[in-house]
Amino acid sequence: MSAATPPITRLFNFVGSNAGPWLIDHMRSVVGEPIVTASRLSVVSGPVAQLPLETSWLLRGIASNERYVTREEKVALVSRQEGLGRKASTRAALIPIRKNSSWWALTQDERREVFEAQSRHIAIGLKYLPAIARRLHHCRDLSPNEPFDFLTWFEYALSDSVAFEELVEALWASPEWKYVDREVDIRRTHAEV
Amino acid sequence: MSAATPPITRLFNFVGSNAGPWLIDHMRSVVGEPIVTASRLSVVSGPVAQLPLETSWLLRGIASNERYVTREEKVALVSRQEGLGRKASTRAALIPIRKNSSWWALTQDERREVFEAQSRHIAIGLKYLPAIARRLHHCRDLSPNEPFDFLTWFEYALSDSVAFEELVEALWASPEWKYVDREVDIRRTHAEV
Repeated sequence: MSAATPPITRLFNFVGSNAGPWLIDHMRSVVGEPIVTASRLSVVSGPVAQLPLETSWLLRGIASNERYVTREEKVALVSRQEGLGRKASTRAALIPIRKNSSWWALTQDERREVFEAQSRHIAIGLKYLPAIARRLHHCRDLSPNEPFDFLTWFEYALSDSVAFEELVEALWASPEWKYVDREVDIRRTHAEV
Repeated sequence: MSAATPPITRLFNFVGSNAGPWLIDHMRSVVGEPIVTASRLSVVSGPVAQLPLETSWLLRGIASNERYVTREEKVALVSRQEGLGRKASTRAALIPIRKNSSWWALTQDERREVFEAQSRHIAIGLKYLPAIARRLHHCRDLSPNEPFDFLTWFEYALSDSVAFEELVEALWASPEWKYVDREVDIRRTHAEV
């Protein structure tokens, strides 16, 4: 591997501070304890060497194997999805969530039942592909004391802002969300002035 | 919470050194890169404040939600299993394994198919309950660079040594084990002299 090719890592850091490429123009605590406000966001892969001086928070997550998707669903998702970093994707959201102990006490078949049979989580995401690109990061097994279980990062174009709102509202209304006991909604919804 | 009650943690460290309560009398690389030898093993929960001077290795894992077990299987397991730390359990094994990229590219339904329909992993474990007590620790999502994906810790009585060998050999012979690309078998099989 050449020095110019950094190793691919599954670990991503979301740094909220007063510096970074992503403007934060909207932060809202949906349920549970809020996090402090920040005006800019950086997404950093791998270990973080140095934090901006005025860092408000650093949320870490790891891209991992999917826990519920079947092969048939995976084929449908892959055939429609597009990557992060599209030029037109000037809007973004970071939505950290934590699920309660009742969720984690469910068995695999019970969690799948709530996740898809009851909540259509995969079907809802599929409906908004390729418009809403996303990457899911797992936090729960990074350490025993992570503030959230999952971080989802979304990127989309201004013209898909309404679609994104529909997606989020569909998930909020789902039976799966009854298990969410902490959630923060961090957005870049407007253009830079 | 009183000072005498330490917080329950899901993080466990297995420290191989020349000190610690568990004698290691057998270490074998089953497949892939070996780890250096050690004569004693400690199981430490939570963050490790200080390592023994001559530490050979520290393997970390986190007890997490089960990924394949259904409610019916869980009920059967819970009704038969006993905890770690039984007085008669003077024998133990630590078996770290890593699975290859083909495994992690499988979808949930495909992994469950290999794990239980083909390999009877849960049924095999159930057959040896309550004799063989175990705790599974996940490592893969602790960081992007963990040496193993899972650490399983087993405790059993001398009189169940043959049963333990049968259990391990049944798993080694299973289709699931074709995906294992690194495995070390660390045992305390004999009494202290």
